[in-house]
Amino acid sequence: MSSLPAIPPFSVECAERARRHQAQLTKPVGSLGRLEELAAFYAGSRGEFPIAVPVRLLVPVFGGDHGVTAEGVSAFPANLSTPILQNVADGGAAISVLARHFGIDVLAVDVGLDGQLLSSARAQVPMLERKVRRGSRNMLHENALTRREGEAALAVGIELARDRARNGLDVAGIGEVGIGNTTASAALIAAFSGRAAANVTGHGTGLDTVGLAHKIEVVEGAVRRVASHTSPLEVACALGGLEIMAMAGFIIGCASMRVPVVLDGVIAAAAALIAERLVPGVREHLVAAHRSSEPGLLVACEELALTPLLDLGMRLGEGTGSVLGLVLLRASVMVMNQMATFSSAKLTTEDHSKGSLSLGLGGVSHR
Amino acid sequence: MSSLPAIPPFSVECAERARRHQAQLTKPVGSLGRLEELAAFYAGSRGEFPIAVPVRLLVPVFGGDHGVTAEGVSAFPANLSTPILQNVADGGAAISVLARHFGIDVLAVDVGLDGQLLSSARAQVPMLERKVRRGSRNMLHENALTRREGEAALAVGIELARDRARNGLDVAGIGEVGIGNTTASAALIAAFSGRAAANVTGHGTGLDTVGLAHKIEVVEGAVRRVASHTSPLEVACALGGLEIMAMAGFIIGCASMRVPVVLDGVIAAAAALIAERLVPGVREHLVAAHRSSEPGLLVACEELALTPLLDLGMRLGEGTGSVLGLVLLRASVMVMNQMATFSSAKLTTEDHSKGSLSLGLGGVSHR
Repeated sequence: MSSLPAIPPFSVECAERARRHQAQLTKPVGSLGRLEELAAFYAGSRGEFPIAVPVRLLVPVFGGDHGVTAEGVSAFPANLSTPILQNVADGGAAISVLARHFGIDVLAVDVGLDGQLLSSARAQVPMLERKVRRGSRNMLHENALTRREGEAALAVGIELARDRARNGLDVAGIGEVGIGNTTASAALIAAFSGRAAANVTGHGTGLDTVGLAHKIEVVEGAVRRVASHTSPLEVACALGGLEIMAMAGFIIGCASMRVPVVLDGVIAAAAALIAERLVPGVREHLVAAHRSSEPGLLVACEELALTPLLDLGMRLGEGTGSVLGLVLLRASVMVMNQMATFSSAKLTTEDHSKGSLSLGLGGVSHR
Repeated sequence: MSSLPAIPPFSVECAERARRHQAQLTKPVGSLGRLEELAAFYAGSRGEFPIAVPVRLLVPVFGGDHGVTAEGVSAFPANLSTPILQNVADGGAAISVLARHFGIDVLAVDVGLDGQLLSSARAQVPMLERKVRRGSRNMLHENALTRREGEAALAVGIELARDRARNGLDVAGIGEVGIGNTTASAALIAAFSGRAAANVTGHGTGLDTVGLAHKIEVVEGAVRRVASHTSPLEVACALGGLEIMAMAGFIIGCASMRVPVVLDGVIAAAAALIAERLVPGVREHLVAAHRSSEPGLLVACEELALTPLLDLGMRLGEGTGSVLGLVLLRASVMVMNQMATFSSAKLTTEDHSKGSLSLGLGGVSHR
């Protein structure tokens, strides 16, 4: 893995300059809460201040199939992954609708679907064919990917990110489609965090209690099987699907180019955990968009020291949560850049009222 | 108060039709969490299904001053209310920036400022002069408003709402500017909920611990003073500011016309509590946008049976939180209307894969 790019450090100085600027805006200091943090994060991750409002935003949606579906771990049939990603490309998915509304680009990337995306007259979202293999192997019984396959999927993500960054990408979200991938993600998060399978495994798209108990056993079995694997890359290939590896690569590629990534749910978080283990420091360029109902997400966020922004009970995947996170991030920079400062607004009482201003506004604004 | 308009009931049937439609969309049922609830709420409040995406969104920002500031309950000087609302009108406030970005109208309404808004070349937001009185009286020692003043402020809000609704307003947010109004709101919430002042009073724009203890005493004193007041209108006039009464009126006016209102923070919640006590049923047309750091907000939400959507640590007021709530609500209806259904997307595996679909998709989509 000599080819993994270096990660530039988060600029504490630019983030601090953004914070100092926001302290001069016409509001009590800190009163915009996490919006203020987001704007400072953006400046620090990009390493610029002043910094323009992001205009090029992209959510790639990576598709891959999972051999572990043979164990009956999903409420949905395995062969739905391809038509679901096709629906994203055709503009009918939630991510397609939300991204169109909010002026965010989406890209459907087949890195490991068992089926084939079709160009269609309905296609509204560009497609990228980078299939490494038709689905992963069953992680319960054998390594899901060979090292060569894992590296190839990782490279798909890295190259996509670096290419887009060179062409002006400002900030990215990330999404996925892959029946069975909450199972793979749970195994990855358990293996990397040392937590028990039961603490990181959830209902996915809609398992019942019996289904969940079985899924936990499958995750336990897979994690036990790879207990002797020592390197993060080995663990990732043994458990991870192709789309998860590509997502890890995309995250690394973005971070290497100072393009922050707004994560989606548990699968994106598992990919981020792989990325951070492969290249420590990646996490400084990440935002967790939302708290899904999958318990593994919060464990992964803890490992990455991230606190999710939203808690809307969403568990759809596809990048839907990351679109909402991107919308907040872009708005936060806009507020930072376009609000009046106490001095630019001449925010004093002289014109309006008989009283004169006894408290210094500078003092108030810096409280 | 014979002039208070009647509130049409929330249409359980339209909300249910929206839910049933969303169960056919290409996603696991319920997987968009609160976005699905918002879309169903919108259909039920408006009493229509199918229902178009809201295109006319307005956040009126009501300004008023508070006699209780004489007690030293705010970190900001009282005579800042007017220039702060002026800043909203001039486009320099957070609400101005956010609303412009998201295509939402803002209106600055002076219903009780001590000072005077100035038309200026910078004005980006329309202003409405409906001053009932230059600020309220000190609620600790006397009724903040006479009944006549309170009713006049209420009427300003009702008339604005009904006029806008007749001109096509689809959904509203609500905001305010008024130094001292978290104190008035705490007193209103304590009086209407029966909770102790200490449980509903917060730091406002930035009081320290000593300042907060004093503010709690002031709230306690005011609530004690009005203990013999029996009617909701009497209590509201005794404690409420002019902008709070106008907000209550605006909420009533909107609800009477089936225009749902997305509340902001603790002041909007206090106004909603007045509205609900004056005309029970209003609350069915309300959304709580966010959880601010003011403890009274959650108490008011409990009284209104509302659960805030967001928790971003915001405490700015002015309607900033309600803009974000409106953005989510509009997006939720767009997703409901524009996503493919399982049948419209022909979401089957036939074109993509060798396998045929063994699980009925209809069954899955209705889980």
